[in-house]
Amino acid sequence: MVQSQQKLDRVLVRVQKLTPEKADQLIWVRARIHTSRAKGKQCFLVLRQQQFNVQALVAVGERASKQMVKFAANINKESIVDVEAMVRKVEQKIESCTQQDVELHIERIFVISQAEPRLPLQLEDCVRPDGEGDEDGRATVNQDTRLDNRVIDLRTTTSQAIFRLQSGVCQLFRDTLTNKGFVEIQTPKIISAASEGGANVFTVSYFKTSAYLAQSPQLYKQMCICADFDKVFCVGPVFRAEDSNTHRHLTEFVGLDIELAFNYHYHEVIESITDTMVQIFKGLRDKCQTEIQTVGKQYPSEPFKFLEPTLRLEYTEGVAMLREAGVDMGDEEDLSTPNEKLLGRLVKEKYDTDFYVLDKYPLAVRPFYTMPDPNDKKYSNSYDMFMRGEEILSGAQRIHDAQLLTERAIHHNIAYFYYVTNTLVAGKIKSYIDSFRYGAPPHGGGGIGLERVCMLYLGLHNVRQVSMFPRDPKRLTP
Amino acid sequence: MVQSQQKLDRVLVRVQKLTPEKADQLIWVRARIHTSRAKGKQCFLVLRQQQFNVQALVAVGERASKQMVKFAANINKESIVDVEAMVRKVEQKIESCTQQDVELHIERIFVISQAEPRLPLQLEDCVRPDGEGDEDGRATVNQDTRLDNRVIDLRTTTSQAIFRLQSGVCQLFRDTLTNKGFVEIQTPKIISAASEGGANVFTVSYFKTSAYLAQSPQLYKQMCICADFDKVFCVGPVFRAEDSNTHRHLTEFVGLDIELAFNYHYHEVIESITDTMVQIFKGLRDKCQTEIQTVGKQYPSEPFKFLEPTLRLEYTEGVAMLREAGVDMGDEEDLSTPNEKLLGRLVKEKYDTDFYVLDKYPLAVRPFYTMPDPNDKKYSNSYDMFMRGEEILSGAQRIHDAQLLTERAIHHNIAYFYYVTNTLVAGKIKSYIDSFRYGAPPHGGGGIGLERVCMLYLGLHNVRQVSMFPRDPKRLTP
Repeated sequence: MVQSQQKLDRVLVRVQKLTPEKADQLIWVRARIHTSRAKGKQCFLVLRQQQFNVQALVAVGERASKQMVKFAANINKESIVDVEAMVRKVEQKIESCTQQDVELHIERIFVISQAEPRLPLQLEDCVRPDGEGDEDGRATVNQDTRLDNRVIDLRTTTSQAIFRLQSGVCQLFRDTLTNKGFVEIQTPKIISAASEGGANVFTVSYFKTSAYLAQSPQLYKQMCICADFDKVFCVGPVFRAEDSNTHRHLTEFVGLDIELAFNYHYHEVIESITDTMVQIFKGLRDKCQTEIQTVGKQYPSEPFKFLEPTLRLEYTEGVAMLREAGVDMGDEEDLSTPNEKLLGRLVKEKYDTDFYVLDKYPLAVRPFYTMPDPNDKKYSNSYDMFMRGEEILSGAQRIHDAQLLTERAIHHNIAYFYYVTNTLVAGKIKSYIDSFRYGAPPHGGGGIGLERVCMLYLGLHNVRQVSMFPRDPKRLTP
Repeated sequence: MVQSQQKLDRVLVRVQKLTPEKADQLIWVRARIHTSRAKGKQCFLVLRQQQFNVQALVAVGERASKQMVKFAANINKESIVDVEAMVRKVEQKIESCTQQDVELHIERIFVISQAEPRLPLQLEDCVRPDGEGDEDGRATVNQDTRLDNRVIDLRTTTSQAIFRLQSGVCQLFRDTLTNKGFVEIQTPKIISAASEGGANVFTVSYFKTSAYLAQSPQLYKQMCICADFDKVFCVGPVFRAEDSNTHRHLTEFVGLDIELAFNYHYHEVIESITDTMVQIFKGLRDKCQTEIQTVGKQYPSEPFKFLEPTLRLEYTEGVAMLREAGVDMGDEEDLSTPNEKLLGRLVKEKYDTDFYVLDKYPLAVRPFYTMPDPNDKKYSNSYDMFMRGEEILSGAQRIHDAQLLTERAIHHNIAYFYYVTNTLVAGKIKSYIDSFRYGAPPHGGGGIGLERVCMLYLGLHNVRQVSMFPRDPKRLTP
């Protein structure tokens, strides 16, 4: 066991760097035993390091004894080993490995960490495309087994690619906004009042009282706008106590939140957000092509399409398109999930884009802090954004006037209210409403679900695939 | 009220851009009324936008009526206004404003958002250095009043600077690690077992069962290492149900966490972390000088000093220095807070650095997953890092062997254990311990408290100053 007994000068070469330029050099590599096959006096190994792998060989001869070949052949799969080996060019490309032009001739081998002999699931079963190998009776791995053994499932090339891409989404989101002059903020997750009303909120015991887990950073990012931060973003967990067991709901997910003051019209906010999304799409296309293709091998999908500038439709236009397609729905009715998806297909057919904005939602279906439309009180200055027909962002101009906000909160039965010196103030959300009493600029924003963006960009079908350790009503471990 | 009635082409100039180059131009500005002083036929305003401000004047004459001067004089402080004004160079620098070379001659003024006439606290009282103005009987604002009215307190130049610097710390942390090949991960905050043992953990109702709030991403970032991500970091909230009302404890704070596989010795990990910290210190020094000086005006402190490479002392050396200074303490005793601070002063005197590493802590005072020292079982491969004598990071080589980890967990009474087919496995932390059963590389890491880094870098004395909406046993709002 490496217990930091000594400092070695030994250089470990990355598997990815094992190319013909290294031919005929004696090098050290640390990697996992991906597969192992003994054959007479030889043992063929595939050594894996993250998404890269290389063929290696131990053969009885000058440099290796019979015992060593036997020892190598007996090392359990997934064990981590250090090998000293000669890099040799190969005549024929090794199609099954990422390092196709070389193999390693092992001279010494040490086990750094031994895996148990029986793995709860096999990596090759985890990366097999749906349907492939069914006729051979090969095992497929269902999602719960994968998630129960997530540490092994995350070692697959597909998982490695998904989460490297996810890391990229966060980085692109923040870099784009930082370049636009946004400030990153940190908002509290333990709060004293439910931000989106009392439903679907987790309760926490907080010393001698109780508190809630934030369903969004909504109230806090708005307070930062009232505090003159002008343009803010935050990346952090949001919690929803929804007892929904669907492909796209989690009880805990990562919110990418934006809020900004605008000058005259909330479309300035929409433009800022859609431009950010476009920068993310372009960044992924340019920087994560390997990851996209790796995931595509297991889960094929059409490349993600988007327009510049982003398509913006009004809600009434969306409803008209749905009605034309035979859907029966009212003007002020919210979009059901099937209708959302249908509309996504109609939009794709007509405009050839997987990303669009639906603007001016009916006021009745939006949260209390949404600014009503100035011309038609049935509607509001609010919008959703969609990828491949599924919602990834909900946003709006917010009410920045304490009086109107109070009226709307009462209308929505948010918390309780009482009169203080002629002014109606909100009980539980008092400090939120108070934020607007000392001058507040017009502002708007939106909240993006990180997992949904990754899922839909890659054309995957379950949000659990893009959450490292997903939480749903039935899953709290690992 | 700006309800997005219309889109205007009007350009709003930022206050920061009001320089002599703009002289004799008619421009529009949106800003807050910082101060207002009417004097006969004139009204002098200071217009503020974040940390910048400019003098403005409405005077009865060709462009402004008597009514307009009166109207301007009656706008409440902190209201947001749009003004159309001619930029004029001034003869004498206006020392009280950031824009010292110009003033605005207002021709039109509109109120965008009216502040209430009485503010719960005055911005100028919030930025006054401790002690200054005491003799004049000027109000000082205590911390609770500030925090109760945080939205106004955050508008001060000091707060604006603190949180822009904090945003910078996060960015430097992530950029440095991304450049080193680290992957950003998102770990769950709702967990089924307390990661650091059962004490000080918040309980959440989770549908029909209960769960905990993560005290750190510890177990999850290690699981990512077992899942071959090699080097990972995460930025997110951590929760501690400690009933401590001190200057440096919060019940919710932001953790900057690092975990990485190493080759031979955990000092590779220490070097990676200290190098990251040094990059942060340098980045702040180079990019946030304005913010550092702004905070320094209200809270003077010595510039933060650090060495390259970072000073690393062993625990026994630290104890020896304390004993030499008259402290009576045992070899395996943990450092008390006063001793930490004293040691910080001794180290500063001897080595002239505000940042150092204390390495090889007694095993007994560290968490169960800490790797014991290979040569002396009283000690461990663990370390803390200090800024200005206060701990900002705790870290270690972790045990990567399931058998040893199980033994140490039993020794620490972490959860319960039972036998399955000859193998002792942990009950509540089974999925964590299981992660090490299928090959795990030697690894280590640490967790940094964001607020402490900001507080100590700036030489502040209360962590609540660097948390936008702090949470402690007595505070849950705003």
